[in-house]
Amino acid sequence: MTEVFVVGTDMIRFGRFPHRTVANLGGEAALLALDDAGLTIKDMQALYCGNNILANRMVGQQVLREIGQTGIPVVNCANACATGATAFREGWMAIKSGVYDLVLCVGVEQMGKGLLGSGEVETGISPEGILGSMTTPSVFAHVGMEHSRRYGTTFEQFAKVSVKNHHHSSFNPKAMYQVETPLEEVMNAEMISYPNTKLMCSVNVDGSAAAVLASEKMAKKLGLMSRAVRVRASALTSDPFTDRNLTTPDFNAVTRLAAGVAYEMAGLGPDDIDLVELHDCFATAEIVHYENLGLCADGEGGRMIDSGETALGGRIPVNVSGGLLSKGHPLGATGIANIYELTTHLRGEAGQRQVEGARIGMSHVVGLGTACAVHVLEKA
Amino acid sequence: MTEVFVVGTDMIRFGRFPHRTVANLGGEAALLALDDAGLTIKDMQALYCGNNILANRMVGQQVLREIGQTGIPVVNCANACATGATAFREGWMAIKSGVYDLVLCVGVEQMGKGLLGSGEVETGISPEGILGSMTTPSVFAHVGMEHSRRYGTTFEQFAKVSVKNHHHSSFNPKAMYQVETPLEEVMNAEMISYPNTKLMCSVNVDGSAAAVLASEKMAKKLGLMSRAVRVRASALTSDPFTDRNLTTPDFNAVTRLAAGVAYEMAGLGPDDIDLVELHDCFATAEIVHYENLGLCADGEGGRMIDSGETALGGRIPVNVSGGLLSKGHPLGATGIANIYELTTHLRGEAGQRQVEGARIGMSHVVGLGTACAVHVLEKA
Repeated sequence: MTEVFVVGTDMIRFGRFPHRTVANLGGEAALLALDDAGLTIKDMQALYCGNNILANRMVGQQVLREIGQTGIPVVNCANACATGATAFREGWMAIKSGVYDLVLCVGVEQMGKGLLGSGEVETGISPEGILGSMTTPSVFAHVGMEHSRRYGTTFEQFAKVSVKNHHHSSFNPKAMYQVETPLEEVMNAEMISYPNTKLMCSVNVDGSAAAVLASEKMAKKLGLMSRAVRVRASALTSDPFTDRNLTTPDFNAVTRLAAGVAYEMAGLGPDDIDLVELHDCFATAEIVHYENLGLCADGEGGRMIDSGETALGGRIPVNVSGGLLSKGHPLGATGIANIYELTTHLRGEAGQRQVEGARIGMSHVVGLGTACAVHVLEKA
Repeated sequence: MTEVFVVGTDMIRFGRFPHRTVANLGGEAALLALDDAGLTIKDMQALYCGNNILANRMVGQQVLREIGQTGIPVVNCANACATGATAFREGWMAIKSGVYDLVLCVGVEQMGKGLLGSGEVETGISPEGILGSMTTPSVFAHVGMEHSRRYGTTFEQFAKVSVKNHHHSSFNPKAMYQVETPLEEVMNAEMISYPNTKLMCSVNVDGSAAAVLASEKMAKKLGLMSRAVRVRASALTSDPFTDRNLTTPDFNAVTRLAAGVAYEMAGLGPDDIDLVELHDCFATAEIVHYENLGLCADGEGGRMIDSGETALGGRIPVNVSGGLLSKGHPLGATGIANIYELTTHLRGEAGQRQVEGARIGMSHVVGLGTACAVHVLEKA
């Protein structure tokens, strides 16, 4: 099995683009990523497209109509919030299979309006049987309150996650927001579902991101190794239905399972990771995922945020892009935007938000339903 | 790269099941295919699910909730009428990659009501930019009329396709219909869009099909080689935008491209194929696809149906399952139902409709938007 390398990646600045099409948004990221690799769509042997809301609308083919209909295989993938990561992983698998040497992965989403994206566009996440009668904010409120009950985690600690991630995104020109949110502002914002205020919920935006993947042979042949990033592990899991906390879908178990698979595949442990982009769909989620990903011991999540270890400059910076809380969370784009962020740091091209000396990064996304994807990238 | 084998496959009898869930339909086919392999869901390392209409609803995970939540990766694929074939192909790629040795592919669709499936459930095929103002029946009416204009193909010749496929399905207990339709009945049925009458349009049904794929090593280890079928080629294409007939989407070019890739990958030519399941979404389509798949020379399609060469017992039997015209066409299930049909013949287990001595079979599906998948299977 060949090793697989990211040889080009980029994303558009996340925002609200109600007057553009999903194909146009996806096409822009695709062209940016191809430019980054110094390649064109004619060089690509397959396209993996991640889009959740319009998953049944041939979005990948629509993207090709924007940038060049070369006849290549197009696979449209959907996996809720793990949609982009799933498309990326299928591209990785396509290179690993030896069937292709160069594939393009595009993630794109045009969300509806409103906090939950449940406005004009159908979000496509069915509550029946997945959440029971719970909405997403209430699920992640439960997740936080359960953590509080067990470990005494405070409202202020959860709020600090949002302060940190908004601070990070003030250095990220591709984030939706580049504005600091002081702790008081976060804590006093409109309460959505305790303990998450409005500023502790991910930003509902439109966006797109793309990555070009190459086999080792092709990356070398094209002279792209100097800025290439190795995919050292790729894990995807669904709900294992174990250790179930019956009041909420089990985001913990699905993440722990994926993290375990990824660490084993990479032959690495949490101490080897230099930066993490994890699924902070709500501030409470970030705290529990510190533990689920093994970045600290169980119950230590609150301490982690207090200590500043996960802030830029800390021991293990988390969500230096601004995360879902401030960069934004367009479902299909998120997983590939994480790849862009990690790659940018591993290349040493992240400017003001650069994690110095970063050699290994981890991306984590988790979708309702349930799907969790963890990727480990390494400087080539 | 390992070779990949179908070691278990089955489908439900296609029909209308408005009171069942899509997960329940998919789960039934999955269990049948697992039974056929003598395996259980606990043996599976990944699930590839093809469902078009509810592609954004985590249908694969819903299927697992029906049959066992083991935590395995689930990928939901959509590609219009090529949805099931795409899920199967991603499963094939997953084995080829060496990442997995046993994967389950499930295709399932619960269609809406009415001839076009445009009733209660949104079909998810967007007409904008794909068909212009044309409906599917009008596209395939054009396809037939263009063939008539060039080659003199007659209404009666197109109608004979439906007579043949209905005859075939009278031997297929899993087809929606097991009833002969005499030529007169086909020709005198309600006209939908000339030259296709109602009996020359595919049957809008619910259905599911599944296949278990294994690496060579695993198939041998499990002692499953005696009934195994080798995937000798897997091709997927999108619209290459060449030789465009501007009045219709180019189903010809996308199919010719896929067939070329598949023949090359298999190292075979049309003369080596013993039976074909091709995309007879309308009777006119079958005639043009004879030529697109190289089963006869251009312009010979009408002669092919007149001569009986593509009927059971003929030189190259086509759609012995009954095809989309009589077995039915639940989008996400169709591609994998083709795999089931071919496998059943290659195993010599097709009963009254058995193509005697069949060693190599071809499956072809083509979806609006555009996606074409061609698979070549071979007796192991």
